[in-house]
Amino acid sequence: MKTLSDLTRSAKNETGKIVSVANAADEEVLKAVKEALTESLCSFILFGNENDIRTISNSIGLDLSSSDLKVVNEENDSARAAVEAIHQKKADILMKGNISSKSLLKAVLNKEYGLRTGKILSHVALFEIPNQDRLLFLTDSGMNIAPTLMEKAEIINNAVQIARGVGIDCPKVAALAAVEVINPSMQATVDAALLTQMQKRNQIRNCIVDGPLAFDNAISSHAAELKDIQSEVAGFADIIAVPTIEVGNALYKSFMYFANAKVAAVVSGASAPIVLTSRADSAATKLHSLSLALASLKKF
Amino acid sequence: MKTLSDLTRSAKNETGKIVSVANAADEEVLKAVKEALTESLCSFILFGNENDIRTISNSIGLDLSSSDLKVVNEENDSARAAVEAIHQKKADILMKGNISSKSLLKAVLNKEYGLRTGKILSHVALFEIPNQDRLLFLTDSGMNIAPTLMEKAEIINNAVQIARGVGIDCPKVAALAAVEVINPSMQATVDAALLTQMQKRNQIRNCIVDGPLAFDNAISSHAAELKDIQSEVAGFADIIAVPTIEVGNALYKSFMYFANAKVAAVVSGASAPIVLTSRADSAATKLHSLSLALASLKKF
Repeated sequence: MKTLSDLTRSAKNETGKIVSVANAADEEVLKAVKEALTESLCSFILFGNENDIRTISNSIGLDLSSSDLKVVNEENDSARAAVEAIHQKKADILMKGNISSKSLLKAVLNKEYGLRTGKILSHVALFEIPNQDRLLFLTDSGMNIAPTLMEKAEIINNAVQIARGVGIDCPKVAALAAVEVINPSMQATVDAALLTQMQKRNQIRNCIVDGPLAFDNAISSHAAELKDIQSEVAGFADIIAVPTIEVGNALYKSFMYFANAKVAAVVSGASAPIVLTSRADSAATKLHSLSLALASLKKF
Repeated sequence: MKTLSDLTRSAKNETGKIVSVANAADEEVLKAVKEALTESLCSFILFGNENDIRTISNSIGLDLSSSDLKVVNEENDSARAAVEAIHQKKADILMKGNISSKSLLKAVLNKEYGLRTGKILSHVALFEIPNQDRLLFLTDSGMNIAPTLMEKAEIINNAVQIARGVGIDCPKVAALAAVEVINPSMQATVDAALLTQMQKRNQIRNCIVDGPLAFDNAISSHAAELKDIQSEVAGFADIIAVPTIEVGNALYKSFMYFANAKVAAVVSGASAPIVLTSRADSAATKLHSLSLALASLKKF
């Protein structure tokens, strides 16, 4: 798979899936719903103020009588309602509408009706970067502020599951640092080396982890050769696992703003994938993110 | 100044400057010397094994009889010899040849003949990024492993001095984090806020510091507006001051590998600018780095 359009085409194989939207009364969200219906990607249950949803739908030409749409009037707690729909197996994917990420995640983590699995929740982004020969995952660039070593292992596991969904059976994971050698004064290098060995002991599965690797070593086999790095991952990373949220966030945004990348992103680790699009995201990003969520539903 | 070629043109105004090269017996280094002479940028003192320097020069067509070149046979300790030349005011800029950065910096930090100023040494990189309307500084992406707050202030001061050399009288400095709000659990946001206030109290001078800013807020005024960030720096940063070496290193390499950037880099904080080019650097990078070093000699 080389482009995010490939991803959307492939996601159509996951037929009959239902997306539960928390507070769908939002123009950008309903535009994304409309686009997904045009692509025959999935069905939706739209929770929120029904009148507002109808008004906005009319204005953007979204036909609410579609058999792939259901509107549920829920003014008080659309986050709870949308989450409960998944808890009760009426839907497969959770999508954020006109509501804060914080409110939505609070409902996701609710012990009674939420989507807890005992795993950490983490952000998984998939980039299409101009002039690169393959898609590249980046994790975690948005959720975990200061993950411990064990949490980093879980973050990798979460990303691996998504990568397998898009057809990479045994993803190559670069545990990122600023250098490729272990330096006890640089915690990122220590954690990266430990994650590498944890994979060898099956504490991390279904992938090959190698680190520490600097960014250039991870993505350029020429750079790795210049440093004489012997590694199955170096130069061929499918997943960049960052040491801190600051690295993930800066890389994410440099890909988007300076490298003209396209992105799809989901939150992984709950009992259903979560699409947390924001207002700043384009319609294409929202569609690609839904596609990534659909792809990740694939069972192994 | 919009391109690194502008920088090279501008550096020619710093006439009569001399570059001291530690172990010049290296093809890539001598190619850079040849290029600098062609551009009439500066003069050189080449320390190292004279026979080796002559052999390589012959093979690449570098005319050692040029009045802008002096070869000093120094087989034992070319790092010391090159550094001493600056200490004795016989040269203005130090350049790394076929020697490790570690050996060169050891000589730089020598208490007797070195180039100590009491300031921290830090790496300052200047990028030309396609489709961006100005050059962008990044610091510190290569030298300081875990800078303290006070060291971060010095790192900014070092970069500001270089930025003023290239004509930015009062550079805008974005103190980077993953978010734009202060969160005591995220040290990067705390340090960024403190650096902002340190600038207001003149502990950091000749610039405007603002942070925490996420990468997109720093470089895109549209992104800053979406977040309703009121800041003189947001969207217009001249200098990105990173919270950790991991962030700096990853950004540096993502600019180079994914955004097709061009770069110039120097080490700042010693009594002379230091050009630490590496084998992987192109001839253009070496020339631009020499130009940046020359520009930074400008007195205020």
